[in-house]
Amino acid sequence: VIIRMPLVRAKPTEAHASTCPASPRTSWLERIRSSIAECGPRLAPIPATTVEPLERARILAGSLLSERGQASIAAVARELLNVLSGLSAEEMAAFIIFVASSFHPATEKLAEAASLYLAEPSARTAALLAHSAEPPRQELLRRINMAEGGTAALLRLRSQLLLLSKHVDIANLDSDLRHLFASWFNRGFLELRRIDWHTPAAILEKLIAYEAVHEIRSWDDLRRRLAPDRRCFAFFHPALSDEPLIFVEVALVWGLADDIHRLLDDASDVAMQKQRAANADTAIFYSISNCQTGLRGISFGSLLIKQVVEELRHEAPRVTTFATLSPIPGFRRWLTAQLNARARDSTDATGSREVRGSLAVSVEPHEMDRLRGILSDRDWHQSAETAAAVRPVLLRACATYLNLSPRGLSKADTVARFHLGNGATLQRLNWLANTSSKGLQESFGLMANYLYDLETIEANHETFVRDGKITASAEMKALLGSRVDSSSLPIARLRNRLSR
Amino acid sequence: VIIRMPLVRAKPTEAHASTCPASPRTSWLERIRSSIAECGPRLAPIPATTVEPLERARILAGSLLSERGQASIAAVARELLNVLSGLSAEEMAAFIIFVASSFHPATEKLAEAASLYLAEPSARTAALLAHSAEPPRQELLRRINMAEGGTAALLRLRSQLLLLSKHVDIANLDSDLRHLFASWFNRGFLELRRIDWHTPAAILEKLIAYEAVHEIRSWDDLRRRLAPDRRCFAFFHPALSDEPLIFVEVALVWGLADDIHRLLDDASDVAMQKQRAANADTAIFYSISNCQTGLRGISFGSLLIKQVVEELRHEAPRVTTFATLSPIPGFRRWLTAQLNARARDSTDATGSREVRGSLAVSVEPHEMDRLRGILSDRDWHQSAETAAAVRPVLLRACATYLNLSPRGLSKADTVARFHLGNGATLQRLNWLANTSSKGLQESFGLMANYLYDLETIEANHETFVRDGKITASAEMKALLGSRVDSSSLPIARLRNRLSR
Amino acid sequence: VIIRMPLVRAKPTEAHASTCPASPRTSWLERIRSSIAECGPRLAPIPATTVEPLERARILAGSLLSERGQASIAAVARELLNVLSGLSAEEMAAFIIFVASSFHPATEKLAEAASLYLAEPSARTAALLAHSAEPPRQELLRRINMAEGGTAALLRLRSQLLLLSKHVDIANLDSDLRHLFASWFNRGFLELRRIDWHTPAAILEKLIAYEAVHEIRSWDDLRRRLAPDRRCFAFFHPALSDEPLIFVEVALVWGLADDIHRLLDDASDVAMQKQRAANADTAIFYSISNCQTGLRGISFGSLLIKQVVEELRHEAPRVTTFATLSPIPGFRRWLTAQLNARARDSTDATGSREVRGSLAVSVEPHEMDRLRGILSDRDWHQSAETAAAVRPVLLRACATYLNLSPRGLSKADTVARFHLGNGATLQRLNWLANTSSKGLQESFGLMANYLYDLETIEANHETFVRDGKITASAEMKALLGSRVDSSSLPIARLRNRLSR
Amino acid sequence: VIIRMPLVRAKPTEAHASTCPASPRTSWLERIRSSIAECGPRLAPIPATTVEPLERARILAGSLLSERGQASIAAVARELLNVLSGLSAEEMAAFIIFVASSFHPATEKLAEAASLYLAEPSARTAALLAHSAEPPRQELLRRINMAEGGTAALLRLRSQLLLLSKHVDIANLDSDLRHLFASWFNRGFLELRRIDWHTPAAILEKLIAYEAVHEIRSWDDLRRRLAPDRRCFAFFHPALSDEPLIFVEVALVWGLADDIHRLLDDASDVAMQKQRAANADTAIFYSISNCQTGLRGISFGSLLIKQVVEELRHEAPRVTTFATLSPIPGFRRWLTAQLNARARDSTDATGSREVRGSLAVSVEPHEMDRLRGILSDRDWHQSAETAAAVRPVLLRACATYLNLSPRGLSKADTVARFHLGNGATLQRLNWLANTSSKGLQESFGLMANYLYDLETIEANHETFVRDGKITASAEMKALLGSRVDSSSLPIARLRNRLSR
Repeated sequence: VIIRMPLVRAKPTEAHASTCPASPRTSWLERIRSSIAECGPRLAPIPATTVEPLERARILAGSLLSERGQASIAAVARELLNVLSGLSAEEMAAFIIFVASSFHPATEKLAEAASLYLAEPSARTAALLAHSAEPPRQELLRRINMAEGGTAALLRLRSQLLLLSKHVDIANLDSDLRHLFASWFNRGFLELRRIDWHTPAAILEKLIAYEAVHEIRSWDDLRRRLAPDRRCFAFFHPALSDEPLIFVEVALVWGLADDIHRLLDDASDVAMQKQRAANADTAIFYSISNCQTGLRGISFGSLLIKQVVEELRHEAPRVTTFATLSPIPGFRRWLTAQLNARARDSTDATGSREVRGSLAVSVEPHEMDRLRGILSDRDWHQSAETAAAVRPVLLRACATYLNLSPRGLSKADTVARFHLGNGATLQRLNWLANTSSKGLQESFGLMANYLYDLETIEANHETFVRDGKITASAEMKALLGSRVDSSSLPIARLRNRLSR
Repeated sequence: VIIRMPLVRAKPTEAHASTCPASPRTSWLERIRSSIAECGPRLAPIPATTVEPLERARILAGSLLSERGQASIAAVARELLNVLSGLSAEEMAAFIIFVASSFHPATEKLAEAASLYLAEPSARTAALLAHSAEPPRQELLRRINMAEGGTAALLRLRSQLLLLSKHVDIANLDSDLRHLFASWFNRGFLELRRIDWHTPAAILEKLIAYEAVHEIRSWDDLRRRLAPDRRCFAFFHPALSDEPLIFVEVALVWGLADDIHRLLDDASDVAMQKQRAANADTAIFYSISNCQTGLRGISFGSLLIKQVVEELRHEAPRVTTFATLSPIPGFRRWLTAQLNARARDSTDATGSREVRGSLAVSVEPHEMDRLRGILSDRDWHQSAETAAAVRPVLLRACATYLNLSPRGLSKADTVARFHLGNGATLQRLNWLANTSSKGLQESFGLMANYLYDLETIEANHETFVRDGKITASAEMKALLGSRVDSSSLPIARLRNRLSR
Repeated sequence: VIIRMPLVRAKPTEAHASTCPASPRTSWLERIRSSIAECGPRLAPIPATTVEPLERARILAGSLLSERGQASIAAVARELLNVLSGLSAEEMAAFIIFVASSFHPATEKLAEAASLYLAEPSARTAALLAHSAEPPRQELLRRINMAEGGTAALLRLRSQLLLLSKHVDIANLDSDLRHLFASWFNRGFLELRRIDWHTPAAILEKLIAYEAVHEIRSWDDLRRRLAPDRRCFAFFHPALSDEPLIFVEVALVWGLADDIHRLLDDASDVAMQKQRAANADTAIFYSISNCQTGLRGISFGSLLIKQVVEELRHEAPRVTTFATLSPIPGFRRWLTAQLNARARDSTDATGSREVRGSLAVSVEPHEMDRLRGILSDRDWHQSAETAAAVRPVLLRACATYLNLSPRGLSKADTVARFHLGNGATLQRLNWLANTSSKGLQESFGLMANYLYDLETIEANHETFVRDGKITASAEMKALLGSRVDSSSLPIARLRNRLSR
Repeated sequence: VIIRMPLVRAKPTEAHASTCPASPRTSWLERIRSSIAECGPRLAPIPATTVEPLERARILAGSLLSERGQASIAAVARELLNVLSGLSAEEMAAFIIFVASSFHPATEKLAEAASLYLAEPSARTAALLAHSAEPPRQELLRRINMAEGGTAALLRLRSQLLLLSKHVDIANLDSDLRHLFASWFNRGFLELRRIDWHTPAAILEKLIAYEAVHEIRSWDDLRRRLAPDRRCFAFFHPALSDEPLIFVEVALVWGLADDIHRLLDDASDVAMQKQRAANADTAIFYSISNCQTGLRGISFGSLLIKQVVEELRHEAPRVTTFATLSPIPGFRRWLTAQLNARARDSTDATGSREVRGSLAVSVEPHEMDRLRGILSDRDWHQSAETAAAVRPVLLRACATYLNLSPRGLSKADTVARFHLGNGATLQRLNWLANTSSKGLQESFGLMANYLYDLETIEANHETFVRDGKITASAEMKALLGSRVDSSSLPIARLRNRLSR
């Protein structure tokens, strides 16, 4: 450390003078204490040498805000990070609460600015009001970032904050952090990097840790995902050099992939993989994972997919189709709810309109039984007969489910919401495409292909956002059939159609 | 470009809905226009194909703010940058004024939030008020940054803004930009890089362009400054990879350097330079230049010097002294004013107290004549006799000048203010250390060594900021003599001392 | 490929004209064939389209040698590599035999040059003779290297050659390859790189594959060996960017390490590891592995160790002791032979002088029994009593063993030969330092510390090479006792000494 | 330096034992001396401390060869390089002569091997003979390369050697060096790098220094050659990281360039340059320069051009024509000789057949006068009339000149020999394409386009090498007309043709 902890501190900067005043004739520690005292909870006067880590962190936070001079600020920030790194989870929570409940804008000054604005609303008074309203907390966070490792520390701080109860102060601090991160992790500062087997192990092990869709079971598994017929890209931020923010895994294949196991468990050799990569006409995005809890709410997925499409178009001009092979995480939960509602309907015959309205799939009694059967039989898919029997109704039900409005999807299925919101087309449903226990549990083994067609993506996005309608392929539309009308169909006709 | 300009746009985001509403039934262009119309100056309805660049930029700015979806925002930002890069200086000025005068916070909403806060001041209402008070302008700037080259474009925009008159709107936009840059160019995101003869020419030519203290006259001159007994370091930002933000030039020497020409014009060979670097005990910081007009007011100098000291301590452990060889840009101007004031004093004998108070140097009549003489003789320093005669009084006067209060220095001498404010010690004045016309013009050829002594730097900084006192070496104090008392000394005794 | 296989070829170069002439009036293929025919085994005339890979490789080899023009040579070399990469192991062996038995120097020309030299030995005739004596084979190998991947292919070729029987032609080709590699893998072309957890996985997996001393069991195990208190360095060659040539693993510790398990199985956390690295005074080289079979006989170990010592002295100035913790692979084999010889001595009482001479350790009858006991008991070291009983005699025997002459060590113990030949000092023996089954099997669990003391390393090297004497620490000398005299000691006195 | 100069040395290695024996009982210095004494000139016995640099270099060379152990060899090599770097030019020459005249193969041993081979020529005896015939000198050179900077030092050594008279020893040493360099600078070890304005200045300044065709006058001039519509590529060797071996400068243009000044002096701005690069259909190689005198005779040009063509085809697929704009350095010299011969012919009317044979261009008397006129008038090209008058005969003469046989071109025009030997097509002659004084002096301002057509390049190369015929475009053939027959044409008819 180049600059030791300063022993005596200057007066607080003018900017925060009214917020955290310090009397001029006292020692640094005392002044910091009293300055903090006015901003946050009172601290008993104790000698500096016996200061507990938590208290030391509080004092340093106050000191950090009252510093002048970039170099001194950096030095105090460094010291604060040092102390924070040694706090226990409980102490850290206490520190977060301290920051959240201290460093508010100075009430009097803000009230004055508010009154002034009300008296005379103008650009000048608005600017003054905005300035007075910005909580010193935000400046504190920016200053913490001046030490090496500051950005990472603030991400950790937010991920810990997210575990705390939603007090208004906590929510405000969270809002400040999110605001700051949205600015710092602005697209202009992100770097897209290709990840492959030449990537440092220190980064690769993060993929293993962060993969959230299809677990990476070992380094051998990882190597398969980075083989010549695979691609992996991630966004990085310069201040977090070894930490991916988000990454996507891609398989280069021939035609739309319809089975996740064939991608994950493929055991071809390197020569074959190179051959495939050279011949591929389709890039399948089969896994996309956010890595940083601290960045929750700040979205990079849409940007990542679109930039990766650009990269691949340049690197592999023969690849002309870009699509996902995606889980449908909420389908089974939704269908179960539907069936339960139907059961109630059947019994009391007076189901609420809402339940009825969402009861989009017409299912005949004997199909109901079959569906209920597979709900309780873990191995239903291993019986060819059972599988064949439920296949049409499950596909149809799933198509209906994915055809929910944006609002409905937001609640029911974040994956579908994400891709359809990006402007992708719901292209195809794949039967028994993921027969892992998770795949069966979530969606009866169904997976979806969402197509990223650059020609239509913008218009789809518009339609989705503005009109609340998803874009689906002809195949999917056929599957949906005359859904709107279907509710009015006699059971018999529906039965006929389903049994074709 | 992966995503073409969208033809139809969604409703503006909720955040800005009240600010820039758009009616839902109109074309994209019309909606953008009307949204802009409410925020800024009215635009006549003209077809999209004939839109002038400036108007196109305005429309895109409005569109950018109303976009949802990261990828779409990035696409519009890219398009906007494209258009901006083609604007003439006048058009750009008009665009800046447009941005500055549009995109204010929505008056009603802000007034409501202000009233709410006044009625019930709490963390919740304060947060609400802060949120309402943030001008949409800021979000616009953040969004411009999402395109590649956005950061550079915003820096250019600010450097153009600084040329405009200081209307309150312009000042507010400037404040927003500075606020944003302070956050983005936060220490945690800067990268210190060594610059040497292995640095790409594309960066080296920037040094030639940006050097502000001692002009780099040619590539040969530049090579000399990057030779084995020299060091050069710069801060870079990841979003501006070829653009230094600030750089410092250092010479490794034996003992404090006292002559800038000996550093700049040294013609030793590489073997000798290596020898010197190996033996050096002192690092002389002889030039420090800010590179980006757009970052005016955001200071990196103090951080840079202190981090370079750290680097050098690690790289060259034998180097134990870190000091500058600095210009004293305001000395001659100050001394001239002093002499003029004295002249007035002499004539009307009733000089104001203020002038007298600043008239810190007691100068005898015959010395006055000499000083006046060198003010009008460009070649005075080439006469050994003249130089010897004015040397004591000039040194003394300069010491007095540099002993001004922080406030005084801020006005008179930004270089001294910078180093002394950093906590450096005023170590020594060097006679005829810079006899270039600029050196003579600024400071009669005098240069100062400011010493960066890590042991005292913090305390000095405190003393300067809190007590308004500079720290000077014993040598400098001797030069100052009993300044405070000197005013009471009989002229005769002072004359004796000066003539020693 | 920029240049297709040429259809018609020029006359062979002058240099090889006399060796492999080609008649001018025939097709390219025929000419190549006939040129090869004169150099190697006859080939039946078959059309080019049906040429088998092996034959195609032969033809290309001949063509490669007869090419003029750098670009054409590179193109043919590329084609040859292509064909070679598709050969089966048997075909490859056949190709190696073909190359080895073809492309000899032209007999007549060489005989002429030899006669000329004998008639008139001079610098000129010697140069002529050297030129005539160089087999075209060498030029062929150099030309193969002109294609991308050529160096790697030649290394593979040699590793396959080493599996073939030692025909004189094969031995000559091997000699050519070794000669070429010694020139290409010259120290001046090697690059020392630090390997750590930031190294690409593609290189790290090579460590797992090549580690020859203490197996790396998993990626977690590997990470431990690259943790903050460990160092790993390797030599690389620019033409083999992902392939280490040799690597060494180092532990930073306090004091000489005496137990390999404590190094390999240590489970401390990162903070502790950093602490240790900061405090370490000793670097223990605990594993060094050659990676390339194709480079057998070309030694990098001594250079690597000495350069790593240099690196560490620079990086960690507090580390002042550099030593190994080494296996003693031949000790048990040697001791067993000793005991067997002793047994024969006892029975026929007329052991040859040589056996007696090597019977350096005086062992009493009851100790003999104990030694024989541990030879047949795999778990002897788990009995504290047994271990204590054999400890003195084993240590003494091992010290004697390691005190063999350079010639003796070359046969018995390549590890000891290597380090002592490098000028290291035999510093200490460590009891039960490696109780893995391999450790017990090789050396009864003993390991040695060889000390690399820069002050004495050159003198030790001299003593070892010139005088055939190893350098041992005082501790080791004490262990050896008055070895020379001991053979003359009465058994009773030896017994007393051993039982102390 | 990790290992100090050893004080006492081991016996020489077996390999060289018979060549440079050292008696075992003497000091290191004495032994080296005596070992050298047997190999080279006698040295008087002088104490080590007073050894002159040159003698010290000689002693170290002998020591280097007698060393065992890679690390010791590297240490002695380092010391030798140190001493060599301090030698004056004369001392260096003496050292080269020393190396060239020492370190021959041992006469007796070589004679023995020669006899053995003559008695029984076999693979075994041939290998033995080859081994005995290799001069120890070669091993010495390889060992010098073991120190850092060794390769560069050996290149310098050869460039100094090339200045010495051509004694047979010198020629042999030169041959050894060339042999070694051909192996080390093998294509497989070279790296193609693009050079642009982002290249380190330390490399860029080498371009300025080494450009041999069209001088680079300043850094601004250099920047123009690296602008967006230009390309520059160089081969590098890993052991010479900042030293290009050869580089080529390329202009991206529309159509064949016909004027070098338009390329060199173009002053378009960056936007225009980018535009041109995007539209270009032709890459003009307008300058290619070898950089290392020490590598004379080792050719990279053909490889470089062909690899750059590959690079450009990949980077700029719209570029489909690859051609040069080349000087014709020997044309004026050749034509002058022709005219002189003609003058003699006219006077004595009995010109030798050879002169007549080469007198390929039929020139009428009045044309002769014109040609003689421009030979003595430096400004002839500035007279439109004069230029128009000589244009047809000059073009025709130049076409004839470039149509020389390979052997003729080798002597007359290395540029034409190089490109036509590479398989390029002589495409076009350009009138007044280089009116610099050099251009006028060499070729009356004419320049040639050589076309690199990948379809025909191999066949052209064959035709040139085998049949001694160049390949020319239809345009060039028309210019040549019925050359073979032309000698038989009546003057009148030729006159008619020329005057058309």
